[in-house]
Formats: sequence, structure tokens, C-alpha cells
Amino acid sequence: MVTLTVLYGMPDDPAAFEAYYANHHMPLVARIPGMGRREAARAVGTPDGKDAAYYRTFTAWFDSREDLEAAFATSEGRVVAADVPNFATGGATMFVSEVDSA
Amino acid sequence: MVTLTVLYGMPDDPAAFEAYYANHHMPLVARIPGMGRREAARAVGTPDGKDAAYYRTFTAWFDSREDLEAAFATSEGRVVAADVPNFATGGATMFVSEVDSA
Repeated sequence: MVTLTVLYGMPDDPAAFEAYYANHHMPLVARIPGMGRREAARAVGTPDGKDAAYYRTFTAWFDSREDLEAAFATSEGRVVAADVPNFATGGATMFVSEVDSA
Repeated sequence: MVTLTVLYGMPDDPAAFEAYYANHHMPLVARIPGMGRREAARAVGTPDGKDAAYYRTFTAWFDSREDLEAAFATSEGRVVAADVPNFATGGATMFVSEVDSA
């Protein structure tokens, strides 16, 4: 099992980010062939009450790195990747991880 | 639903980190009362083949922020928090997030 993690930095205009993300970006994500389990979350702070280092996280799970790469190699996947700069004014840090089997 | 995310930076000695994490830290995590679903993963790179910004991620899911805080307020939870500096030589970025209901 592998994951794609996206860490969004604090955007210039959080309300505009939220509207675009929910109404435009996530529906595009849903159209990617082979996109399965996924989860988006909004950071609320550190465990000790300070500001979080990121604004939002997105995680998508795939059976293999090949499946992940195949999903984002589709035309729908390329549309999603190209859409990120349209709203991620605080940056988007992305990486692929292998989930521990334990 | 809320998550605790931990992003570990690249440690000085990845092999030493892996041994300590698997054999000492994660068993301590498993002892925390109220600790449920959790997932650890090792970053392998960015989608376009560069080095990932982090070395490892850990996510734990809780029904509420109160449940999360209660878990880490136990003696077992405090032991886990205090153990992080013993192996996270590349730093550990932690934050709490609220999972989107959609």
C-alpha cells in the first residue's frame, strides 16, 4: 500500500481556497480513474496549542506505486495536478510513501 | 473525526531510527489507552522523482479532539511524547486536523 500525501501551506485567502477546493478541485479528483480511498483534513493547531505548520492535508491510498502513477498519468490525473497552482497560494508539498505493513 | 499527524525529518542515521521506531517507540504507542486506528509510512520521493520533504509520516485517528487529548494526557501518552526526541534526530512536525466529513 502506498499513499500520496499533499500538505497545503496557509493560503492567502482561506475562504477562497475552501470554496475552490470543495467545489472545483475535489470534484476533479473524484474523476480520476483508479482513485479510491482518500481523506482531506484541515489542520487546527499543534498538540500544544500553537499554529500548525500546514493548512490542509490530503491523503490518497493506492495498492501500489504503479497504480498511483497510472492514476495521475491519465488525462483526468493531469488535470488535477495542473489545477493545484490555481488555488494553492500557500504552496503544496507532495510526496509518495510506502505504508508499514505492521 | 480528527487526526494527529507527525512528519519526521530525515534522521542522522536512518537505520538507527528504523530500529528504535519499530522496536521501542511503536510498542509504546500501542500501549496508549484509547489509541485506535493508526498508520505509519516511509516516504519514497515526490511524484516527479525528487527527494521527499519528510522521511516518515505517522497518522492516528480519533473520534474527537477531546479523545485525542485524553489519550496523550495519560501516563502512557506522555511517555510516547517524551520518547520522540530520543530518535527523531531530523525533527518531528506534529499537528491535529479535522477530517472533512465528505
